[in-house]
Amino acid sequence: MNPDPSRSQLKIRRVHLDTGRENVVVISRRSKALRADIFRGFSRVELRLDDKTLLATLLITDDDALAAQDEIGLSEPAFRRFGKPVGTLVTVAPASPPESLEAVRAKIRGRTLDKAEIGAIINDLAHFRYSDMEIAAFLIGSASFITSDELLALTGAMAQVGTQLIWPDPIVVDKHCIGGIPGNRTSMVVVPIVAAHGLPIPKTSSRAITSPAGTADTMEVLARVNVGVEEMKSIVSSCNGCLIWGGHVNLSPADDVLISVERPLSLDTREQMVASIMSKKIAAGSTHLLIDIPVGPTAKVTTAIDAMRLRKLFEFVGDRFGRSVEVITTDGRQPIGSGIGPVLEANDVMAVLGNEADAPHDLREKSLRLAAHLLEYDPKLRGGAGYARARELLESGAALKQMQKIIDAQGPSTCSTDLGPISFDVRAAHDGVVSAIDCLRLNRLARTAGAPLDKGAGIRLFKKIGDRVEQGEPLYRVYTFDGPEHDLAVSAARQETGYMLNGREALQGGTQS
Amino acid sequence: MNPDPSRSQLKIRRVHLDTGRENVVVISRRSKALRADIFRGFSRVELRLDDKTLLATLLITDDDALAAQDEIGLSEPAFRRFGKPVGTLVTVAPASPPESLEAVRAKIRGRTLDKAEIGAIINDLAHFRYSDMEIAAFLIGSASFITSDELLALTGAMAQVGTQLIWPDPIVVDKHCIGGIPGNRTSMVVVPIVAAHGLPIPKTSSRAITSPAGTADTMEVLARVNVGVEEMKSIVSSCNGCLIWGGHVNLSPADDVLISVERPLSLDTREQMVASIMSKKIAAGSTHLLIDIPVGPTAKVTTAIDAMRLRKLFEFVGDRFGRSVEVITTDGRQPIGSGIGPVLEANDVMAVLGNEADAPHDLREKSLRLAAHLLEYDPKLRGGAGYARARELLESGAALKQMQKIIDAQGPSTCSTDLGPISFDVRAAHDGVVSAIDCLRLNRLARTAGAPLDKGAGIRLFKKIGDRVEQGEPLYRVYTFDGPEHDLAVSAARQETGYMLNGREALQGGTQS
Repeated sequence: MNPDPSRSQLKIRRVHLDTGRENVVVISRRSKALRADIFRGFSRVELRLDDKTLLATLLITDDDALAAQDEIGLSEPAFRRFGKPVGTLVTVAPASPPESLEAVRAKIRGRTLDKAEIGAIINDLAHFRYSDMEIAAFLIGSASFITSDELLALTGAMAQVGTQLIWPDPIVVDKHCIGGIPGNRTSMVVVPIVAAHGLPIPKTSSRAITSPAGTADTMEVLARVNVGVEEMKSIVSSCNGCLIWGGHVNLSPADDVLISVERPLSLDTREQMVASIMSKKIAAGSTHLLIDIPVGPTAKVTTAIDAMRLRKLFEFVGDRFGRSVEVITTDGRQPIGSGIGPVLEANDVMAVLGNEADAPHDLREKSLRLAAHLLEYDPKLRGGAGYARARELLESGAALKQMQKIIDAQGPSTCSTDLGPISFDVRAAHDGVVSAIDCLRLNRLARTAGAPLDKGAGIRLFKKIGDRVEQGEPLYRVYTFDGPEHDLAVSAARQETGYMLNGREALQGGTQS
Repeated sequence: MNPDPSRSQLKIRRVHLDTGRENVVVISRRSKALRADIFRGFSRVELRLDDKTLLATLLITDDDALAAQDEIGLSEPAFRRFGKPVGTLVTVAPASPPESLEAVRAKIRGRTLDKAEIGAIINDLAHFRYSDMEIAAFLIGSASFITSDELLALTGAMAQVGTQLIWPDPIVVDKHCIGGIPGNRTSMVVVPIVAAHGLPIPKTSSRAITSPAGTADTMEVLARVNVGVEEMKSIVSSCNGCLIWGGHVNLSPADDVLISVERPLSLDTREQMVASIMSKKIAAGSTHLLIDIPVGPTAKVTTAIDAMRLRKLFEFVGDRFGRSVEVITTDGRQPIGSGIGPVLEANDVMAVLGNEADAPHDLREKSLRLAAHLLEYDPKLRGGAGYARARELLESGAALKQMQKIIDAQGPSTCSTDLGPISFDVRAAHDGVVSAIDCLRLNRLARTAGAPLDKGAGIRLFKKIGDRVEQGEPLYRVYTFDGPEHDLAVSAARQETGYMLNGREALQGGTQS
């Protein structure tokens, strides 16, 4: 009297469809499994084989090339995560929503969640059991209001669900910038300085999602960054630091899932940001943390009041998790350094580390300031001596040497360091002083030019705020690899340069030479 | 200097993938359009050809069978909605989110929306410009709190965005049940009674989404229900009423979009329910409306207080839109009639209309009560005479004759009226009186048996609450068409019959004979 199991057994087929984070599977409209009616009214299914299960969103097809009558087509992420070969028989059943979704619905109705409920939600998120819609439900249910206890529970659960790094040292420092400022590659200067001093600083970074370069994209110009946990530990043990991509280390994987829905919805709440950053840093085993909040009209944080609110949240969460957290606000009115795009930014970093005469002064000064804060965490260093020590390590070449050591340990880059061969200059249409630079606009322009996929595409800035410019003088140069990208970038720059001269758009009232 | 448009022109290919409501398109990872970087970081694209545009969610493929380098694969709904032939060159660009999404984000942050903002959201929803995630964002952003003005704006916007029916008559009546009770096919008795009296009652119904039969599924056993607007008007003009599926009439299409996300998320707010029902009824041109709220432990509304709150919302919205709305609460403790599933329910309806001796008394009495309320809307009828008039029309055979006229006007059914040939009885394991029947459980069991896709699958109830049952006596019979469905249904019924005898599960403490 047991239901015939052959009805719901289908053969795995691989469908070369990149469905992003979401598991998607395809079943034929003529499938026996569908005919048995178990899927009617359901849009989510569960695949089972031995003790392996996978929740996925179901699409129906009339095309045997995607799934024949006795097959189930697994999209790329579903195939990868289920990890069974093509042709394997798998049991397919309608999936009930994850139990933790009941808590999400309670949150939407206005109830406060307890630690166990939040833990269950985060666990299901990290194991890809939520559909995009369900993730959106959790994010938006939490967006309107979240208590301090919920924020702590969220941060803790997110930190615990993936890899948790443990270091032998009593002090493990880290820095993090909340992002948004083009060219802001201070980590690549700060890490070698701090590591040269002897403090462990195991830095993992993200790749660009909406920006033209993440620290991982830029470091990749100089060294391999796809490094796993064990290798990371060995690099940090020999070099005191590393500059790797976080993707292979799996810190706070629920955060990556949440971000995959936050971005397309442009949801950006302070609490989510703090839980996201702090969960990754706690999982990374950092004990002493420096947070950089750039403030400026086109930065993520636009007012000092907002920066202070955010600072207090970071401090609160840090304190409750027993981490030393220092939060500083920095000048976010314009890009840092002269390059935007992986190769151009890597050049800036190496110029600063090499103490070259034309190295960007702002990147050097900001990096020294951040490094100084981190060095002050060293109990052996005399209070107030951080900045001088940072400068000494930079000017002596010790930081550069440490960077070379880290690069050697991570292994050689496979990327070309060539700049895009097709370039154009954007020139001022009238005399004036640079009064504003739009970070968002330049980020978009650098992406249009091809960054970060084309490592050598991007923008080199010739002028910063306060600089005098004469009519016809170049403000910046855009590098591309390809005629059409060049044309798109020219057209975008003509529409709006991102530069204001004396409060007026730089191209207004003149002609481009 | 204009960007080369050929970069972003791709040839339409049809991908036989049923992606439900959402428009999905597929582009090759090697596509020139992708290479131009305009899609990096975007997951939504816009297709343009002449003045036709379509927003869609983008998937990337490595399989030329889905989309070659110069092609864009359109999933079934995208292909249907874009309406251009295979091979047509179409311009593809990254899509900004719909502008109205800014209002959704404001709502999430706690701001109240005005009429224009809600109108823009509903317009974008109805034109399939929102992704599933974005729809979820709107629903959840509105779930926690919605003002009276927002509810009115929502209802009005939803009513206006699709078809709006206009009738020549000063009084156009309609009835609606909020659903959840198996077998509750009163509309199919009420419509012929009211139409026989002479009041116009143009009834559109839904198909089952999570239940074993909607009124449209059941009526389809007797007549064609896929009827469009013009034909509907002609049927109502000749018969005073109709019983058709709403899907071809396009009343409040934004509601269908919202429901497609509400269901998988199991979101169910009073305000959304009222906006959903009232927008469809306002668009349908009803002037006088009767709402049936069944109350019971396994009904949608479980307490009299909840029923009253819902009643007040219906009355408020009805009044503001100048519609007479009467709301009654009915007994929702158990199924209505003896059949669950399209054929079984259609049999119940015809037995009542035919005044057969074994016609289910509860379906007959409830239908007469509802018809009485509607008939009282007729100014020519003496106050309080509604019930007698309804019974007269039923007992005289006038209602049956009217039903035949409606069936003839809608055209013959193409469905078989056969019951499933494989059946089993669920019998009481001990003596007792039926003390409770679980509507949710019986709905699920009837679906497991094959309803509504198998019209003749379902459940026939032999006992209702208050009936004496002896050990071994059958409680109900389950009809299926297929061995495996039979086995699944037996297994489900054994786990839990849905019947309580003297407060104890009917199968407990004995053996099934």
